[in-house]
Amino acid sequence: MAGIKDVAKLAGVGLGTVSRVLNNSGYVSDDTRKKVNEAIAQLNFVPNEVARSFKKSATKIVGLLLPTVWHPFFSELAFYIENELAKSDYKLMLCNSEGNVEKELEYLEMLKKNQVAGIIMLSYTGFLQGVEINLPVVSIDRLLSMSIPYVASNNFEGGRLAAEALIQRGCRKLAYVGGGSTVPTAVFKRRDGFASIAELHHLPCIVYEEFDFMGPERALIQGFFRTEPDFDGVLTSTDLYAAALISEAEKRGLKCPQDFQVIGFDGIQTNDYFKPLLATIRQPIEGLARKSVQLLLGMLDGLVVDHETILDVSLFEGETIKPLPMG
Amino acid sequence: MAGIKDVAKLAGVGLGTVSRVLNNSGYVSDDTRKKVNEAIAQLNFVPNEVARSFKKSATKIVGLLLPTVWHPFFSELAFYIENELAKSDYKLMLCNSEGNVEKELEYLEMLKKNQVAGIIMLSYTGFLQGVEINLPVVSIDRLLSMSIPYVASNNFEGGRLAAEALIQRGCRKLAYVGGGSTVPTAVFKRRDGFASIAELHHLPCIVYEEFDFMGPERALIQGFFRTEPDFDGVLTSTDLYAAALISEAEKRGLKCPQDFQVIGFDGIQTNDYFKPLLATIRQPIEGLARKSVQLLLGMLDGLVVDHETILDVSLFEGETIKPLPMG
Repeated sequence: MAGIKDVAKLAGVGLGTVSRVLNNSGYVSDDTRKKVNEAIAQLNFVPNEVARSFKKSATKIVGLLLPTVWHPFFSELAFYIENELAKSDYKLMLCNSEGNVEKELEYLEMLKKNQVAGIIMLSYTGFLQGVEINLPVVSIDRLLSMSIPYVASNNFEGGRLAAEALIQRGCRKLAYVGGGSTVPTAVFKRRDGFASIAELHHLPCIVYEEFDFMGPERALIQGFFRTEPDFDGVLTSTDLYAAALISEAEKRGLKCPQDFQVIGFDGIQTNDYFKPLLATIRQPIEGLARKSVQLLLGMLDGLVVDHETILDVSLFEGETIKPLPMG
Repeated sequence: MAGIKDVAKLAGVGLGTVSRVLNNSGYVSDDTRKKVNEAIAQLNFVPNEVARSFKKSATKIVGLLLPTVWHPFFSELAFYIENELAKSDYKLMLCNSEGNVEKELEYLEMLKKNQVAGIIMLSYTGFLQGVEINLPVVSIDRLLSMSIPYVASNNFEGGRLAAEALIQRGCRKLAYVGGGSTVPTAVFKRRDGFASIAELHHLPCIVYEEFDFMGPERALIQGFFRTEPDFDGVLTSTDLYAAALISEAEKRGLKCPQDFQVIGFDGIQTNDYFKPLLATIRQPIEGLARKSVQLLLGMLDGLVVDHETILDVSLFEGETIKPLPMG
């Protein structure tokens, strides 16, 4: 990908001149402007709103805005993001929004005031509608806008993998259960991928979701059971919902994986000391972290980076689905 | 506790004058100096090296230096520290040292260069020997030096509580198992409190520790079993060691709590979805976090704060010890 430096070199001008052309500010002669624009065209350089504001950044600090570092998925992510930033001498400022829109906006203001170099953001609220960020931002898990690069697991494929694994193991009554947000996030694709495979096989598929649900996982699962669902294979939106489902099912005399099979999503278990050892769609958490940092640092270097990066997921078989039948 | 403001008020002078007296810098008349020193004596004000350097701080950023935010104990702590700092408009810079001395020193340099207002530190290495910090620091879990305030759980009492709970439930062959560091941290007191109660009851107590152990918990536990230990009641240094012990014991035909009872330490389980639901000595994690921040902010306000703050722990009974016999 061509950067602003390549444009300057090809046009035979300084970086400042390219910047003035891009920002339409300050004096540039018509002749020079023409040379810069030709170089931009020749290199297929797409000036990026965000990368252009880089020069104003005063610090080597990156803000990480996420719901809560206390959740095991986010704490693993935060660990690797900080680790990757440190390699380039960047520091991490940690912001726990608790999924609260007001807090997200406050943190955003704070990060701007502190002149952070950029932000890595995990938001599941609608907070960005109408908000100008004016800073390099990389989003994880969610398409925030067409000008903000985002990195996500292949959630759709994860949903498909889960459905296929359950069907191969004899499940015929599928269900998707979990929390979601009222704005579209990558999490929805788990459900959509799952349902697409059920449809392909002409199998029934219950979808039970509670949006912007903030209570304990167990409460949502109890709501699911109140619908008297008939199921034998379930994908839950996260691992914690899978564990809560198994716990609530046991109270109702249902054993996993004998009576029903469950696959979670995330891959938060880092040891096999605690049971159930969940079958799960493992997200490449370390990969999501490192890639987000690389994209952000690329933007800070004036590069135009990919708008969408989708990383592979994998099925971890655990003990909550049956072994595959032989042959 | 008297602060620098109280001294100024009693002496009838400005804060700057008190500061000049304390730092022995700039002009102060003999008469004024005498008044300030009398106020200091009358108020029993102990000028604090660290608080005195506050005026140089340029940012409202606090560094948090810990082994890894990925561990559930540290991620809960980091969440509450950030939450408490945000109330006073301070920001948190997150540093994962991975327990590595070189990384700790690098982060310390980085934090100084970035002129953070202060540091909250969890270190289990010997890195501070001979290092000048020259910044307000609060230490959690460990006495770093006589000039650095520290906050810890009552680890000794936690060890005592665990031993008493096991003895009350019929255990007569006690063991303490876990990791430790080669420098004295508050964690040692868990062992000492535990052993003190065993001694009081004239009961045998195995102590099995591997210092600066960085492998998986399971590996340390396998080392413990290779000593062919004879035990019926165990305290482990953390919850993860307790879970690993139960898993390894099962492979050897020993069931918990029928054949032996186990108590962990920390209280990392925030739901009862995963088994075993550990009996544990719960640390007041939120309290440790908020208190550390309050001490640090107190120092930044020029107050002299307590050198040692010890918070109460409690026994969570879980399912890995037997119910108490009646009567």
